[in-house]
Parts: sequence; structure tokens; C-alpha cells
Amino acid sequence: MRLKFGMIGGGNGAFIGDVHRHGAVMDDLAQLVSGCFSRNMGKNRETAEKWGISDFDRVYSSYQEMAEKESAREDGIDFVSIATPNDTHYPIAKCFLEHGIHVMCDKPLALHADEGEKLAALAREKNLLFGMTYTYTGYAMVKQARQMIEAGEIGNILTVVAEYPQEWLLVQMVSDRSDQATWRMDPERSGPSGCCADIGTHVECLIKKMTGLSVEKVLANFEKLPKDQELPLENNVQILVKFDHGISGMIWTSQVAIGHETDLLIRIFGDKGAIEWQHKEPAVLRVTRINEPPRIYTPTRDYDTQECRGLSRLPSGHPEGFFEAFGNIYRGFCAELLKEKYGVDCGEYDYPTVEDGVHGLRFIDACIESNAKGNIWVDV
Amino acid sequence: MRLKFGMIGGGNGAFIGDVHRHGAVMDDLAQLVSGCFSRNMGKNRETAEKWGISDFDRVYSSYQEMAEKESAREDGIDFVSIATPNDTHYPIAKCFLEHGIHVMCDKPLALHADEGEKLAALAREKNLLFGMTYTYTGYAMVKQARQMIEAGEIGNILTVVAEYPQEWLLVQMVSDRSDQATWRMDPERSGPSGCCADIGTHVECLIKKMTGLSVEKVLANFEKLPKDQELPLENNVQILVKFDHGISGMIWTSQVAIGHETDLLIRIFGDKGAIEWQHKEPAVLRVTRINEPPRIYTPTRDYDTQECRGLSRLPSGHPEGFFEAFGNIYRGFCAELLKEKYGVDCGEYDYPTVEDGVHGLRFIDACIESNAKGNIWVDV
Amino acid sequence: MRLKFGMIGGGNGAFIGDVHRHGAVMDDLAQLVSGCFSRNMGKNRETAEKWGISDFDRVYSSYQEMAEKESAREDGIDFVSIATPNDTHYPIAKCFLEHGIHVMCDKPLALHADEGEKLAALAREKNLLFGMTYTYTGYAMVKQARQMIEAGEIGNILTVVAEYPQEWLLVQMVSDRSDQATWRMDPERSGPSGCCADIGTHVECLIKKMTGLSVEKVLANFEKLPKDQELPLENNVQILVKFDHGISGMIWTSQVAIGHETDLLIRIFGDKGAIEWQHKEPAVLRVTRINEPPRIYTPTRDYDTQECRGLSRLPSGHPEGFFEAFGNIYRGFCAELLKEKYGVDCGEYDYPTVEDGVHGLRFIDACIESNAKGNIWVDV
Amino acid sequence: MRLKFGMIGGGNGAFIGDVHRHGAVMDDLAQLVSGCFSRNMGKNRETAEKWGISDFDRVYSSYQEMAEKESAREDGIDFVSIATPNDTHYPIAKCFLEHGIHVMCDKPLALHADEGEKLAALAREKNLLFGMTYTYTGYAMVKQARQMIEAGEIGNILTVVAEYPQEWLLVQMVSDRSDQATWRMDPERSGPSGCCADIGTHVECLIKKMTGLSVEKVLANFEKLPKDQELPLENNVQILVKFDHGISGMIWTSQVAIGHETDLLIRIFGDKGAIEWQHKEPAVLRVTRINEPPRIYTPTRDYDTQECRGLSRLPSGHPEGFFEAFGNIYRGFCAELLKEKYGVDCGEYDYPTVEDGVHGLRFIDACIESNAKGNIWVDV
Repeated sequence: MRLKFGMIGGGNGAFIGDVHRHGAVMDDLAQLVSGCFSRNMGKNRETAEKWGISDFDRVYSSYQEMAEKESAREDGIDFVSIATPNDTHYPIAKCFLEHGIHVMCDKPLALHADEGEKLAALAREKNLLFGMTYTYTGYAMVKQARQMIEAGEIGNILTVVAEYPQEWLLVQMVSDRSDQATWRMDPERSGPSGCCADIGTHVECLIKKMTGLSVEKVLANFEKLPKDQELPLENNVQILVKFDHGISGMIWTSQVAIGHETDLLIRIFGDKGAIEWQHKEPAVLRVTRINEPPRIYTPTRDYDTQECRGLSRLPSGHPEGFFEAFGNIYRGFCAELLKEKYGVDCGEYDYPTVEDGVHGLRFIDACIESNAKGNIWVDV
Repeated sequence: MRLKFGMIGGGNGAFIGDVHRHGAVMDDLAQLVSGCFSRNMGKNRETAEKWGISDFDRVYSSYQEMAEKESAREDGIDFVSIATPNDTHYPIAKCFLEHGIHVMCDKPLALHADEGEKLAALAREKNLLFGMTYTYTGYAMVKQARQMIEAGEIGNILTVVAEYPQEWLLVQMVSDRSDQATWRMDPERSGPSGCCADIGTHVECLIKKMTGLSVEKVLANFEKLPKDQELPLENNVQILVKFDHGISGMIWTSQVAIGHETDLLIRIFGDKGAIEWQHKEPAVLRVTRINEPPRIYTPTRDYDTQECRGLSRLPSGHPEGFFEAFGNIYRGFCAELLKEKYGVDCGEYDYPTVEDGVHGLRFIDACIESNAKGNIWVDV
Repeated sequence: MRLKFGMIGGGNGAFIGDVHRHGAVMDDLAQLVSGCFSRNMGKNRETAEKWGISDFDRVYSSYQEMAEKESAREDGIDFVSIATPNDTHYPIAKCFLEHGIHVMCDKPLALHADEGEKLAALAREKNLLFGMTYTYTGYAMVKQARQMIEAGEIGNILTVVAEYPQEWLLVQMVSDRSDQATWRMDPERSGPSGCCADIGTHVECLIKKMTGLSVEKVLANFEKLPKDQELPLENNVQILVKFDHGISGMIWTSQVAIGHETDLLIRIFGDKGAIEWQHKEPAVLRVTRINEPPRIYTPTRDYDTQECRGLSRLPSGHPEGFFEAFGNIYRGFCAELLKEKYGVDCGEYDYPTVEDGVHGLRFIDACIESNAKGNIWVDV
Repeated sequence: MRLKFGMIGGGNGAFIGDVHRHGAVMDDLAQLVSGCFSRNMGKNRETAEKWGISDFDRVYSSYQEMAEKESAREDGIDFVSIATPNDTHYPIAKCFLEHGIHVMCDKPLALHADEGEKLAALAREKNLLFGMTYTYTGYAMVKQARQMIEAGEIGNILTVVAEYPQEWLLVQMVSDRSDQATWRMDPERSGPSGCCADIGTHVECLIKKMTGLSVEKVLANFEKLPKDQELPLENNVQILVKFDHGISGMIWTSQVAIGHETDLLIRIFGDKGAIEWQHKEPAVLRVTRINEPPRIYTPTRDYDTQECRGLSRLPSGHPEGFFEAFGNIYRGFCAELLKEKYGVDCGEYDYPTVEDGVHGLRFIDACIESNAKGNIWVDV
């Protein structure tokens, strides 16, 4: 059987809406039946038609109307996917939770940690699932890394070094400013942090998912580059980190790093080995045990864990990418929902939840505070 | 609007069936409404249900019945996708063409060139589209290479060096023999060639699509490795090639090359530059102009051709893979069909056709002959 | 003509002594005629013999004796190379300067900045050359980077991200402790800093040589990993940096990063382009201009600057390495000395000097202070 | 003690002469005392002076004079290094052998196999050492590969795929023609083969040294590219190979492959594993055991064989290159000579000999014949 779901956003040409949709239906666990894709009703209907929604009564002019009517239908949606700009995540998610509908939301969860905590509390109270699409956690080799670390293959973790440099903002600043650049550089829609909230939070969550470590303290430095442009939000971020047990970390994220497209890189160093994964080659995990040659792990191989193998849809050597990583997160969410709500068993997979989202917001808030106070250590 | 299509094969767990299905629907240009997914009627219905076919009357126990009934319906399928073992391509494609239904077929087109030529003639006679899923031709950077070569950026082509090593057959020979290994090593189902027909033909087609060059002569050497195992079909193939105007080429394909998963690599050398693409990093095109530093092209950039940019669905740096390459081929096919049959314009994209399939069969036949006669030059 | 030189150290099997010797003679600009290679007179003579010194009168039992006697000879050495542990650099260099002999010294210059300043003052006062073997500055592509940045090819520098991870200390801690590990972990011989003084200073100097930027402030965090081992000196170092004009930087150096051998990596981001160099592939410079494909520069090509080309001894594609980088530094030093002292012109090449060494010591001192005070900003 | 040696050639700015010289003296096993560096006596003396030869009586105007006089001296040279164009190797080597002087010669050994055989016979008869500088065999990781293969780590060899593409000839054809291009394209000086003799022979020897396999048959195709330029010698070569026991191989060498500098690549596939080495990253050996992750071996590590470790002069991660590979070949030759002639033991190392040179010439001759007869199989 398939779950029924609806979408908020995705109608205005933003690529991420289509990624949500594809991710949700990839494994035939869900079907798009409803939506509020755009505030413009013409675009709204157009998107609905293009995406194969046959019943136009289920295409709504507001998310409030959608939550109300869908929750009232016997065949109403099982969950909603939220793919709108950051500032709207909170009210939309809150509204659907209040109407008893499960939620899958893009990151960051909200603009401030207190909003996020309210959402988490509400989900708990209503006993509803609340997933977050921290995309990079969906890659097969990230799961492989997680399980190798849990199994002690790199020993005790000594330090973590991660980075996520991009160049797109600088590229766009010298050419035209796209919609993407506009809202991401607008504090009203993006929130009080730019680069840190947009991609720093991806790094923070990925580290947690790969290592199990939680950030406890940060010392952050934000920059708006080039300095002569009086930009509203930071686009280059340096962070020193303390995790549980005082384990150290270092994070660099940037949107003005020419030559880097989407180059998330994470390296975890233990006292018996090290693991490295980068988004540029998502099917590669570089694993080094002390005093042995580095090994290049790839997906779907006998030497991978069963869980890692379960996250690939193609034989070894056939590249899977960003769409499939999204699909893996939706698969986890849908599988749990199918089991809880309908008793259907489709396997069990991890996915990031509202708790990860809340921690991400606390992380962002702590970074903002550390930077504002002159780069001092701040508790998360 | 969406085209309606049906599928033959894909029900027995072979991954390629699902790749066809995802490729066909990826851009909302087609909808799966019918199929004959397995000879086992239970599996057949199960697949239909899983893949969202609501009308079980359109799930058939034989392709002949499907061709007959679908061609008789007013709302019958616009095209059929054939994703079955090699030996069945010919009769199935023939049957659907005879019933006036357009065809998308996996490679190789048939077991022998004469069968392929009959299909090509039939398609021409009936004025039907006949696409072939030579997957690798669907990658964005392959299109970029093609257009840079056409524009003269590497000058006159001097030589082409290509390879497609895999290890899977050897890996499977030392462990269990999967279904995949079984039918691909069975001459009755695979045809008289193993490795050359399975992956050599991919290389041949990719060279043609990237360079515009046609293979005119081959000198081939086939091997069944390890030699002490008395294998039925070759799994290591060395080919010297002459293209148009006597331009030389060299092709190596193998299914017993440990350390190589799906490592298609093509290098084209001209008198003013060179271009290199490999499947392992499908988003990278290495372009060198004479006496200049090599440049690393990636998709969706301003410096790419408009056609190349049109083949990506995500911003730069977000990995796309095998599914999307399939999607690009289906998009080309569906766009042409939508235009021809319904006058709907969705843009124009290349895709491999039955003519490419016929040339591929002639290439395989010539290689078989060259090898049989002791590695002499044979005309294609 | 060839300069005559002597060496201090190098006799106890430390590889760096032999690197100095080879570097000094590589281009036939100097000849080893004297030395005090070891405190052990047997080893001392043995080394002298192995290294082709014919006159054993010029093999000395102490550096003081050597300075005295060589400065008294008419055919005395033109310069001395110092390749001993860190704590001895200051007295040895001071002694030779006082005897009017030019000096080439390994890094770091001394244990403390005030010692370094005394050496710099003495060299100025005596009008003697004082070179420092910051090895990485000797690579051809580092020079190419420097000149491209000077020429404005990457625009104004926005930020610098550099790292130098090694694993050797951890590898040795789990096996035997070599001499290398012993003295480098001994504060009496290494000084008050371990990893920062040993390799952090290489990074600091390389950034200066590639970009022209000087470190003005640091915020540093030192760690002794694994924490349960009560190690005397830090082996993992995180540094935030402010250069001239408030330009930011980030440096990570480690001796406990499994999977990294000698992986110095430096990335310089400007508003028009970016440049990346890593020691693992010293013949490659990755240069990206904004919105253009990254380019892979290699040495000895027409597109390189004349100065870059002058630093290679082999045609393109023939790997040169660490010995040759040392050779380039010695070539610069010897060429200047030949010109100043003998009027012989062998071209003009950069090399790091005592001033660079002093700045390196100030950088180390500031890092030590910042770490001690709880990771606050400290002026250099 | 040090051997005394002389050199023929190297005086006219050809880089390879200086590589011989550095290689010979690198480990303090030999000392240059004599030479005939150029036919131009001015250049001859100039080179001698630059290279530190103090006794000008031992700088000769002809190799014949040198052989005669040096063999007559009590303190005459122990061996001669021949670094002249191909056509002169035979007469020079013959002359020194006849005067009882050991020989180290650049490749190819001679222009024709019969000349080579005469030299081999003469060396045997006179009981003289005769080394050949097949450079690539001197890299540490090549030795590591050899020993892993001998130890059965990749099982039985199934096939070998090797290539050596260069671009320099094409680059020079479009700019000025250097001396290098001139003599290498001149059949009188280079012999009847261009690319095959110049670099094909490197590939052939490297395969033999890494695998132990001997080429028994070849099927070769030579091309002179671009075809409209009427070039005297081939510069693009395709070869199919049969080794012992019918094991297959494939070799491509080219001097007109834009984007490739000195990119020798060799891949050896067995039934239990595979090994890959490329000159671009000489310190890396990629080793894959069947169904395990590929491993990246580097030099000087505990997991390397003792012989491999003996071929590095620096700690792990410090790049060594072409000079040191030459040095390793000279070390092997000098160590054997020191032992045989003077009873001094400096360890034991492999190096290529006149027998390898003879086999290389037979290989070239067979390739020439195969190409001339229309690409048929020819016995070596």
C-alpha cells in the first residue's frame, strides 16, 4: 500500500520541491494527492496538473485550508511535506501537527530554537512523526561510516574536521541575483543567520549522524565577504567545536569559496583509524586503519553492512545521487509511518527527526551568540 | 499531458526494469498504465500493484496479448518499454511495431544484425519511433563533449581510446552465481557474444554519440578468463578499430577486471585538444586544449552549452546519476512522441534509435568474425 | 665556481641532514668541505668519509671549533648548514654569524622569538646572509601561485584555509618510539610547542610566501591526543587567523591524523578566483577563475611564469619532489651569495630568510599564549 | 668506498645526461672522474668543470680515446654511463666492453636486435656488468608490486593493460621543434621506430619487471599522426600482446595524446586481485583483492616489503621522483659492481640488464614487422 501525502511549496521553480516529491515517491511507498504549491493559484493548479494530481479539490490556496480540509476527509493525507523558505516552516508545521497530520520538513526547522522546541513538544504530545530532510545523512556510505564507527573500527574519536564550501553566492553576486540568492540573503525569510543556518546546520547534523557526537560548545566567527559590499548575512563561517567528553572539532562553511560547488567533506579521526566522506564522490568512503593502507569502500558490496546495502537501488558502480539520498530519508519516514499507522512492514531505516532539527537550531543560535560576543566559547 | 506506456519485463527483480520505469516517468511526460512484467502471473500482478497500475485488465500474461489488446483500445498505450533478456528483444519489438505501437528497447537490439535491420525497416515502414536505452549517452557531460567536438574545440580527431572494465562476473564466479550472471553467460539468451555484446556495444555507441565517428573496421580478440574454466562466452575483449577516414581507435572491455565496477572511460584526442569522460565521475569532463592547462568542466554552468544544461535537474554540485541518464533518454523519446502524435512541444533532445542499435549489432558481428578468423580486420 | 660549505648535524641517521646536503650540491653551486656531523667522533668521521670529504682536518668535534678554525682559514667555508634539533639552532647560528660565516638553518629558527630577533639583528649587523629551509616554499608551483596572485588573477583575497595533517606520531606511539618521536616530544629539545612549532610554522610561512599576507592575530587551541596519555607537547592544533587588512584564515595541523602522511594543503580564495596547492601532488596547482572550469597547472609549461619554469630540472610530467624543493631554496641562497661575495651571476631566486624565521617564532609564541589564555585573540 | 665512473654524452643540454649523473652519485657509491660529454671540445670542458671533474686530462674528445686511456690507467674508471642518442649506443658500448669496462646504458640498447645480442654476448664473454636505465623499474612501488605478485597476492595473471601516452611531440610540432623532437623523429639517429622504441620499450620492460611475464607475440599497428604531415616515424602505437602461457596484454603508447605528459599506467589483473601503478603518482600502488575495497599502498610503510622500503630515501609522504628512480637503478648496479670487484657489501638490489635490453629490441623489431605486414601476429 501507499501513503497519501501533500506538499507545501515547490511550485515556484525551486528545485528542492521537486526533489522532495521525487524522494517521497521513489520507492512506491507514497503518492502525492494534495498540495498548496504556490500562493499564485494559477501556478498552484499548473503544478498540481504537472505532478499528476487528478482531484483539483485537493489543491488549496492556503496551507491552513489544506490542513483543515485534509484532516477532515476520511481519505485525507497521511503526511505533509514542507518545502518552503525557512521563515514559514514553523507556522506551517505547527498547523499540520495541530490537525493531527504527520510532518516531513526541510531544514532548518524554524528561525529560532524556541520555535523548534515547541514543534518538538507538539509532535510528542500528539504522537506524530516529524522528519527532517537533512539530505546528506541519506547517503549509503554515511550509514556505512556510522556503523563502522559504532563497531569501534576507528577506536575512540580524537577529533573531527569538517567543511562545506560553496561558491554559488559569489558567482551570483557577480552576475544576476536569482530568487535563491535573494531569499537566502534576506534576514526576514532566512532568519538571523545565512551560511551557518543554511549549510552549517547540515554539517552539524551529519557529524552527529556519522559519529553519534553532540556539539556541546562552539566558538564561531562569521564574515560577510567581500567586506566592502555591506551584506545583510554572513557567508563565511569558522567554528571551533567541543563535542561530548571534550572531543574537539573544526568546521568551515562558506558560500563564497570559488571552485567549490557543493563540497561537503567530513573527516573523523580516531585512535585506531580514520574515516573520510565527501559529497563530491558520495559513493566513496575512505577508511584507514592505523598503519594500514587506506581502503576505498563503495556501496552494495559484500563487505558493506546490510543497512548500507539497503540504501542503494543499483548494482555497484552505477552512480546514485542527491535524489536517491532524499529518497532514503523519505523511505525511513514512510516505513515507520506505514508500520505505526497501518501495520505494514517495509523494513526499518533511520531518518533525521524534529529532535535533530531542534539541536540544529540551538547550534545556530550558539554560533550567532559566539560571533556577536567576539568569538568566545558558548554552550549549545 | 502525459503519454501512456506499458512495460515488458522488470518483474523478476532485475534492477534494469525499475530503471526504465523511473526514467520514463521522471519528467512527468509518461505514465505507466499497462504491462507484462513476468511470465509468472503472481509476480506480474504484484509488480503492477507495486508500481501503481490501478486497472488490472491491463496487466497481461503475454506480450502478444498486450500488443493486441492495447492497440485495440482507444486509450491504448502510446509506447512500450522492453526490458527483457537479449534474446527476446527481437520478437517483442517486432510484435509491438506490427501493432502500430512505438518502442523503447534496451540494448542490444537483437541477437543478430539481420534481425535488427528488419526491426529498423519495420519502424520506418510503419513510421514509428524506436528508441534504444544506450544509457551512457544520456549523461549531461557526454552531450557537452559532443557539442564541443562539433564546434571544433579539439580540432581534427586523431585517435580514440576507450575502455569499459567490470569485475562483477569474476566476483560472482567465486561466490554464488546470480540470475544476472546466469543469463548473461548463456548463449541462448545472450546471443553469440558475451562481454562484447553486453558492454562493448555501449562503448561503440558512446563513441559514435560523442564524436560522430562510425566504426568501419574492427580487429578483435576475445578471451574466456580464467582459461581453465571452459566458459561459454567471452568476458575479456580487445579491439582495434578504424573509424571514418581511417581514424584509429582502441577498445578494451572486460567483466573480469578486479577493482573496476562500471568504469567506462572514453578519451578522444584531436590535433588541437582532447576530451575525457568517465562514468565513475559522470559530472566531470576533462578538456585540454593544446599547450593549456586541463580544465574540469561540470554540469549546469554558464560555460556549458544550453543543451548540456538542459540535461540536469539539480544545481551544480548536486550529484545526478544513472537514473537521470536514463531519464534523459526517455525525455528525448517522449518529447518527440508528444510532438509528433499530439503536437505538444516539450523541447527537443537527442536519443539513441534503432539505427544505432543496428550499427551496434553489425559491430558485434564483425568482432565475432574477426576473433573467429584469428584477429584479422573485418568490415562492419 | 662552487661555494664551499660545512654542515652541523646530519650524522645520526636523521634524514633531514642528507636532504640538506643533497639540496646544497644539486645544482653544482656548492661543495661540502667541512662538518661537525655528530657528537660521536666515530660517526662524525664516518659521515665525512661517506660524504666525500677528503680532508679530515676539516671534520670537527664541536661547532665552536669549526667556526673558529674555518673562519681562520683562507679557504674556509662560505656558509654553514644547520640541521640539528630545534634547541641548538640559536647557539650554533649565533656562533657562526659571530665568526663572519653565512648561515642556512633548518626551521624553527630558535625556541623563542627574542632569540630569533637577536640572530636577525646579528646577521644585519654583520651583513651576512641567513637562509631558512622552509621546504614547501621551494616547490615550483608555489612560486607559480605567488606570481598569479601578485598579478591579480584571483582578485582580492577573501580568506585562506590551510591544513597540515600527519599521522606519524600516533603511528609511532602504538609501535616503537623512534628518535624522531623522542626529541620532537621533548620540550627541552623541541621547545614549548610541539606540533605548532614543527609544522604549524611551515603553514604560516607558506601562506606568507604564496599570498604576501602576514599573520597579525591568532586564536589557537592546542590538544594533546589521546587525552589519557599525558603527553608533554600538543599534537593537534586549531588556529583562527587574522592577516593584514583583517583578512581571515583557518589553520589545522596535526600529528595524530590517521591516513595523512605529509598532507600540507593550502587554499586561497579571492573575489575573482581561487588557488589550491597540496604537497601530496606538488606538481599540480588547481586554479579556478570565477564561473570558469577549474584548471590544472603543471610545471615547465609555456603558460607558467619564467620564474616557475626556472625551478624545475626535468621536462613536464617527470616527478620532482622534496629533494628538489630543498635544492631550490639552496639555489636561491647560493646564487645570492655567489653574486654578493664573488660577483658570479647564476640568476636570482627567492628563498626564506631569518626574517621569515623570526615571524614564525612570533606566530608560535602568540599561538602558545592564546591557547594558554583559553583561546582568545592574541597579537603576533 | 666509491666507484669511479665516466660519462658519454650529457653535455648538450639534454636533461637525461644530468639525470644519469645525479642517479649515479646519489647514494655516494660512485664518483664522476672522466667523460666525453660533447663533440664540441668547449662544451666538453665546460661540462666537466661544472660537474666537478678536477683532472682535465680525463676529459676526452672521443669515446674511443676515453676507452683506451681509461682502461690503461691504474686508477681508470670502473664503469661508463652512456647517455647519447640511440644510434650511438651500440658502437660506444661495444668499445668500452672491448676495453674491459663495465657499462650502464640508456635505452634502447641499440637500433636492432642483432646488435643488442652482440653486446650481450660480449658482456658475458668478458664477464662485465651491463645495466640499462629503464627508469620506471626503479620506483619503490614497482618493486612492491613485483613482490606482491610473486607472493601470489593477485593469483594467476589473467591480462595486462598498459599505456604510455605523451603529448610533447604534438606540442612541439605546433611550436618550435626542439633538439629533442628533431633527433627523436630522425630515423638515422632514432632507428626504424619512433614511439615504439622510445616509450613502448619502457612499457614492455616495466611489465616484465612487475609481472615476470615475457612478451612472446605481438600484433602491432603504427600511426604517424596527424596523417597529413608526412612524418618519418610513428608516434601512436597500438599493440596486442601474448605473454608466456598465452596470457594476453594490450599496450597503447603515443606522443600525440594531448593532456598527457608522461602518463605511464600499468594494470595487472589476476584471478584473485589486481594491481595498478601510474607514473603520475609514483608513490601510490592501488591493490585490490577480489571482493575487497581497493587499498592505497604508499612507500616506506611497515606493510611494504623490506626491498620496497629500501628504495626510499625519505619518510612517508615526502615525494621522491624521477631522479630517485634513476638513483635506485644505479644503486643496484653499483652495489653489484662494488661487491664483485672490491668485495664491498652495500646490499643487493635489482636493476635492468643487457638481457632486458635485448628483449626490448626483439619486441620493437616484432612490432615493426607486425605493422609492416598489416597487423598480423609476429613472434618476438
